[in-house]
Amino acid sequence: MHQVDLNSDIGESFGDYKLGLDEEVIQHISSANIACGWHAGDPVVMEKTIEMAVKRGVAVGAHPGYLDLMGFGRREMVITGEEAKAYMKYQIGALWAFAKSKGAKIQHVKPHGALYNMAAKNEMLAKSIAEAVYEVDSDMILVGLANSQLTKAGKEIGLKVASEVFADRAYNPDGTLVSRKLEGAVIHDTDKAIARVVRMVKEGKVEAVNGEDIMIQADSICVHGDNPQAVAFVKTIKSTLENENVQVIAMEKFIK
Amino acid sequence: MHQVDLNSDIGESFGDYKLGLDEEVIQHISSANIACGWHAGDPVVMEKTIEMAVKRGVAVGAHPGYLDLMGFGRREMVITGEEAKAYMKYQIGALWAFAKSKGAKIQHVKPHGALYNMAAKNEMLAKSIAEAVYEVDSDMILVGLANSQLTKAGKEIGLKVASEVFADRAYNPDGTLVSRKLEGAVIHDTDKAIARVVRMVKEGKVEAVNGEDIMIQADSICVHGDNPQAVAFVKTIKSTLENENVQVIAMEKFIK
Amino acid sequence: MHQVDLNSDIGESFGDYKLGLDEEVIQHISSANIACGWHAGDPVVMEKTIEMAVKRGVAVGAHPGYLDLMGFGRREMVITGEEAKAYMKYQIGALWAFAKSKGAKIQHVKPHGALYNMAAKNEMLAKSIAEAVYEVDSDMILVGLANSQLTKAGKEIGLKVASEVFADRAYNPDGTLVSRKLEGAVIHDTDKAIARVVRMVKEGKVEAVNGEDIMIQADSICVHGDNPQAVAFVKTIKSTLENENVQVIAMEKFIK
Amino acid sequence: MHQVDLNSDIGESFGDYKLGLDEEVIQHISSANIACGWHAGDPVVMEKTIEMAVKRGVAVGAHPGYLDLMGFGRREMVITGEEAKAYMKYQIGALWAFAKSKGAKIQHVKPHGALYNMAAKNEMLAKSIAEAVYEVDSDMILVGLANSQLTKAGKEIGLKVASEVFADRAYNPDGTLVSRKLEGAVIHDTDKAIARVVRMVKEGKVEAVNGEDIMIQADSICVHGDNPQAVAFVKTIKSTLENENVQVIAMEKFIK
Repeated sequence: MHQVDLNSDIGESFGDYKLGLDEEVIQHISSANIACGWHAGDPVVMEKTIEMAVKRGVAVGAHPGYLDLMGFGRREMVITGEEAKAYMKYQIGALWAFAKSKGAKIQHVKPHGALYNMAAKNEMLAKSIAEAVYEVDSDMILVGLANSQLTKAGKEIGLKVASEVFADRAYNPDGTLVSRKLEGAVIHDTDKAIARVVRMVKEGKVEAVNGEDIMIQADSICVHGDNPQAVAFVKTIKSTLENENVQVIAMEKFIK
Repeated sequence: MHQVDLNSDIGESFGDYKLGLDEEVIQHISSANIACGWHAGDPVVMEKTIEMAVKRGVAVGAHPGYLDLMGFGRREMVITGEEAKAYMKYQIGALWAFAKSKGAKIQHVKPHGALYNMAAKNEMLAKSIAEAVYEVDSDMILVGLANSQLTKAGKEIGLKVASEVFADRAYNPDGTLVSRKLEGAVIHDTDKAIARVVRMVKEGKVEAVNGEDIMIQADSICVHGDNPQAVAFVKTIKSTLENENVQVIAMEKFIK
Repeated sequence: MHQVDLNSDIGESFGDYKLGLDEEVIQHISSANIACGWHAGDPVVMEKTIEMAVKRGVAVGAHPGYLDLMGFGRREMVITGEEAKAYMKYQIGALWAFAKSKGAKIQHVKPHGALYNMAAKNEMLAKSIAEAVYEVDSDMILVGLANSQLTKAGKEIGLKVASEVFADRAYNPDGTLVSRKLEGAVIHDTDKAIARVVRMVKEGKVEAVNGEDIMIQADSICVHGDNPQAVAFVKTIKSTLENENVQVIAMEKFIK
Repeated sequence: MHQVDLNSDIGESFGDYKLGLDEEVIQHISSANIACGWHAGDPVVMEKTIEMAVKRGVAVGAHPGYLDLMGFGRREMVITGEEAKAYMKYQIGALWAFAKSKGAKIQHVKPHGALYNMAAKNEMLAKSIAEAVYEVDSDMILVGLANSQLTKAGKEIGLKVASEVFADRAYNPDGTLVSRKLEGAVIHDTDKAIARVVRMVKEGKVEAVNGEDIMIQADSICVHGDNPQAVAFVKTIKSTLENENVQVIAMEKFIK
């Protein structure tokens, strides 16, 4: 039986500012990427989000980002490898304390936003991030974009690695994502998007923008809980996968 | 043989801003309170400070404070117990990741500045801080002002607790510190200060401001590394204690 | 004809975090208190909020608060008078630049949250805030709680001062607000709240908690735009005042 | 008689963190670039720095940077033009309030660190920065690297512009700075550096790295006050210029 993980970013509220339908989306995912207070989230939110994940039986992951709450961690910053490594450790550790308090463990680490995107292409950054995770706990799974520098760096250092795919994004023939600046980067047809995901999971293939089939490793699918439509899409993806005999399950159960 | 711990706040630099003679003072102390990035310190500084402590064989402690870099964590803030607990966990966890990376563990937790002072008097705050430490790792030692709400809360929850004393501060008859706002709060005579410390450690007694002898538990002595004079004083305290047959040693060796 | 100002806090969004129904509430108020980036708001939000206020013909005010986004400026902090003064100037200046860009001026300054509440009672803080406004621009109106240390300090230094009243709060016989910790502090009956406001404006009187009538200066009424009910209440207050022949108008038109 | 301005970054301390020999370097410069609290400086420091500049008769300039205290504003961040514009206004306004309080005005605006360097090359960023200054106060002088996109954008929008030169940096034949990553980028020979500055000011020429003489506009020379050697260099530059009959004077006196 095929297996795949569904992950979503949660715990992005901050102080009086509420963001995301966490209570709803968490009912349909297998892994939660929890913001660590740098690009989103705060300690009180982290405590509550971990509690919610534990209660729902959803695996906990750290979602570290740039120290840029004003830009939600989506703006590129040029940092050194030493800085990247230290910033990752800091945020993973901060989340660890809340997980430890609730008897949970950190299953995975997935960088957020600009850090994720830069680490997909920048070998130095990818290596520093992988080293940070490995040095803190070599049993944590590193989640990166399929076919990226980040998954490559994780494998090289000896980490368990999960390749992440996107239902609604087009792929280049080399397996990388088509830039959002180009037309056709986003697949708006929901049925088509879901069919692509099913195929990625069951066949390990996806049709690239040039019409050619390429190989892709789909360990975890990134879904969103920003609004009711997004949550509805998560439910549909999940039920379609299950109807296709794909088991939706936390990545730690099948990533070795 | 009597035993006592010497602790000092280190790792207080931030970005380009340098503070404290860490490299010097660490040669003379047994426990290091490392800033966790809220009132001082940053992740790169934390990484380097842990490395230095490990190299020097000095025990590592978390030194969490208010999120107030501009006020160096010395300004009182009114926060809820839930916030205090979450803020403590966040910072302890952040430091944990660096300690874990270097094969070290967190021996103790000592709140900083206004958080330390408020927790000495405010039962709710003291309880929340003790709970945070206990929930993250019940094996960590909680360091608080001798005769304070914080040491009391730590004992009540079942934590190992270290009572901290100050060489240069006067004590009230009830064992609390004389407020800095009052005359005579600070003992400027170095010889007298050191003699008091020796007596606190060996006899468990100190002369209060009213001339009366009071009982005091002196597990750890707080020393400073802000300037060359402070470092010289640390050396003198240490050698005087050793000449008096007091062993200066990390608190974990004798706090049970 | 009686005149009164209706003021509301707006521009409290931050980055991706949206807060408040600014576009709706601004249609019914005469003065806008715009967050200055410390407890809420960011420069992009400030620019847009000033534009909106100018377009709607609503007078612009600075709404400075504590540097505490995580606590929305609602947590008490102990700061010196020098700090209070500098923090006020910084935030007033920051907003000034956006007002200046759009050809607007800053009509008034109203501290936010814990800073407002503390300045109502703490003479030193009140004086420092008044001095800050006076030194930046002695033509700006200082808005404070009626019968508070802040309005007193403003008058003493020579500023124009607006006394603010709350429709839904009970008053002590000495003209101060009944603490929210006491029963009866908040008036939940909308009709009663509006009737009290009308009387405060027209007669300069309000019934205190002990049943006694007291004198109160009602230059500006604080209203909220957090949710649709709050906005509806603002509309009702405004129309009731107008039906009672009270002109709702920016405070600068009648505060001399 | 030739005229030139000497400018230096001051007011970079933050809270308990002290940086720079402000009291010393300010005695030898004609214009001060004052940090605005984002990459360095805080409101209390800004207040004191303005006071010091006014007392010394040194012209005041705003020195806005990225919101990155941890990186001292030296790390590149990708921001939109709208963000750049709003961030500039915010910081200029904040400093304005302190200047206004002391009866001073803001003579000039010079972006800091990565923002300065990026604006030298990025036309969009340069334009947004120039627009921000122009919209806040079209009488302020915009200081940018000689031959950069920033000085170009300033001139195009109608601002007064000062071209800044560096004594210790090599120039490319097109008038831009040789990258620090290349050998020979920094001129370590003090006498040579000073001779180059004198020639830039008196002849408007400098020898580029290829040995060719190029034209350069030298309105203001950037000097540093980080350490005693730097301050000594400033004194030497100043006295050499004066001995060469070059008047060292605030840029507003000759930039039209």
